[in-house]
Amino acid sequence: MHAEQRQRTYQLLRERGVQRALFAHPHSITWLTGFAPPVQLGLNPFAGGPPLLWMENGYFILLVMDGMEGTAGALAEDPDCDVVTYLGYTYQQPLDGPSSLRAVLQLLVGKAPRKAKFGVEAQGLPLALGAALAENGWTKPVVIDGWLTDLRMVKTAEELVKLRANFALTDIGHAAARRAVRPGRREIDIWTEIHGAIERAAGHRVPLGNDCVVNTRQANIGGWPEAHALGEQGSIIIDLSTLDQGYWSDSCATYYAVEPTAEQRAAHQVVADALDYAIHLVRPGVKANVIDRSTRDFIANAGYPVYPHHTGHGVGVSGHEAPRITPYNEQPLEEGMVIMLEPGVYFPGEFGVRLEDGLLVTADGAEILTTHDK
Amino acid sequence: MHAEQRQRTYQLLRERGVQRALFAHPHSITWLTGFAPPVQLGLNPFAGGPPLLWMENGYFILLVMDGMEGTAGALAEDPDCDVVTYLGYTYQQPLDGPSSLRAVLQLLVGKAPRKAKFGVEAQGLPLALGAALAENGWTKPVVIDGWLTDLRMVKTAEELVKLRANFALTDIGHAAARRAVRPGRREIDIWTEIHGAIERAAGHRVPLGNDCVVNTRQANIGGWPEAHALGEQGSIIIDLSTLDQGYWSDSCATYYAVEPTAEQRAAHQVVADALDYAIHLVRPGVKANVIDRSTRDFIANAGYPVYPHHTGHGVGVSGHEAPRITPYNEQPLEEGMVIMLEPGVYFPGEFGVRLEDGLLVTADGAEILTTHDK
Repeated sequence: MHAEQRQRTYQLLRERGVQRALFAHPHSITWLTGFAPPVQLGLNPFAGGPPLLWMENGYFILLVMDGMEGTAGALAEDPDCDVVTYLGYTYQQPLDGPSSLRAVLQLLVGKAPRKAKFGVEAQGLPLALGAALAENGWTKPVVIDGWLTDLRMVKTAEELVKLRANFALTDIGHAAARRAVRPGRREIDIWTEIHGAIERAAGHRVPLGNDCVVNTRQANIGGWPEAHALGEQGSIIIDLSTLDQGYWSDSCATYYAVEPTAEQRAAHQVVADALDYAIHLVRPGVKANVIDRSTRDFIANAGYPVYPHHTGHGVGVSGHEAPRITPYNEQPLEEGMVIMLEPGVYFPGEFGVRLEDGLLVTADGAEILTTHDK
Repeated sequence: MHAEQRQRTYQLLRERGVQRALFAHPHSITWLTGFAPPVQLGLNPFAGGPPLLWMENGYFILLVMDGMEGTAGALAEDPDCDVVTYLGYTYQQPLDGPSSLRAVLQLLVGKAPRKAKFGVEAQGLPLALGAALAENGWTKPVVIDGWLTDLRMVKTAEELVKLRANFALTDIGHAAARRAVRPGRREIDIWTEIHGAIERAAGHRVPLGNDCVVNTRQANIGGWPEAHALGEQGSIIIDLSTLDQGYWSDSCATYYAVEPTAEQRAAHQVVADALDYAIHLVRPGVKANVIDRSTRDFIANAGYPVYPHHTGHGVGVSGHEAPRITPYNEQPLEEGMVIMLEPGVYFPGEFGVRLEDGLLVTADGAEILTTHDK
């Protein structure tokens, strides 16, 4: 799994003179290996730290707690990768995942010559492990946080399969949302129907973000579902992201409890037109900030307040990654990037509209990956 | 919120000569402050690192990303605590949460005299932040990982309110499970009904663990729900933990698709009796491993295989914490501890039974916090 990602990374590290590296950021690990442990219960009380990935001259070793190697199993078939585990859960002695992890890490790292230039993701690695490496002679690492950011922008064929599967799940979620919306229903009622429909379709648990807010909330741009109910002429912004196989999707639509009023319909149409306009700008070579500015101008020219957020963003192992479609970003789009576009119009406490599509940048334009009604 | 936890901690640190400390483990932060950011979407792409808590001579400062201070709001009313935020999300410039967090942390820490003995949770603090502190003269910290473990065992009145609210949610989940179980239904179908019922009752999103496995799975001790369906004489182990207000609950029951067979009924009765027996052993002064051994012996004496896991564990800001009810643990129970007891009987690939209750250790015994039918 994900051999192309490792090749890109090895090449970059070699160009920069780094022969050995310790990756510790969850997004890096997933992107480099496909390994994607479950996230939705927070910290595992038995783990000794985050999953780690050690790279030595193009050979990668994933270091995870025992019992979690299941989803990493496919890696074992790759010639450039291996999986090593440490003791996590036990009932026969006191829990001590951190010591077990540290011991295995020192075995792995200890064999390398001390003079080699080595890189570390210092934002993901716990200080306890960094200190243990330093005690072993591994001092003064090259900090490599963020080095993979740009490498991650253009998706591989393998990633596109995972992303498409996730976009299909959000389509299912939006279909459920459309069925669930009616006057009197609370955000959380609608949300549980959406989440249930997605998980039943997937056949397993699927983390779900992002927003489910009725029009009358002051922060009607976004927020998690609560007990606020849809009024008789209410609207609701439903922004859905699933995380499956280590990859995120994204998507947003705005629904109405009954037939929208003329005011609601007018705002909705402007946002839909702005999204269509933005989509038609997408092709290789166009700079991210040109799309951003043009879409903001479209909303302003229609006489509506401009949304106080990004116009869009990349999506992959993170739900929000490069390229960001923002005012400052001069990154040109490239074939194979996957981006979200999500213009909106908001009147705080009154109502808001946001519509969002996912796009694969193609040789001459874009393929829309989201099929939900908007 | 949680002033008693901070007092216990300040006293311990003072006894050990530590005047200043940086807490970085999510469980420590929640226990010390009540601050409990959502966990279920994994890493926040805008955060610069984990929430941190700086302690200086009994005064605590919580350091979190802006926009996340909402649930920390109540802290601001406490005289011994404050909340400081750093810039996370922005669309007007490149994201750089890590730099913003580091800068604010250095401001906080930089004012303290360099010769003071200071403690750090080195398993939770990123190496990048540890290195920044070292560059500022803060070298050779006292490693304080695990110092709070024993302090957390006896719950405060405030914690008991949160724990009881969570146990009530799992009771609702088990009632939904009982309604949902019938032949042909898949684990994920049952799970989504349970999760939906819990979230609708809470009026907001609630992370949910742990197990939902039909009898025919080889690993029928535990696992997440998948597409396996209940057979005509199937059984299913449903182990539910909710996380709300920063606190976990736990609970387990075993359900049958139709009337249980004589074999199923016999095993179920033995586990129910073992749980009752274990519960009646609970009172202050009894050692954890006495309960563990006695309960294992009960199962063995009934002629069944002894479960290959703990007999129980504490529960609080972690779903599995001290005191562990395990063979090696000589910790005596104390009034105010909250523990789970969960004996089981398993025939891999055929069927399994586990039943679990939550207990508050009282002056002369135990109060059962779980009310689901078993």
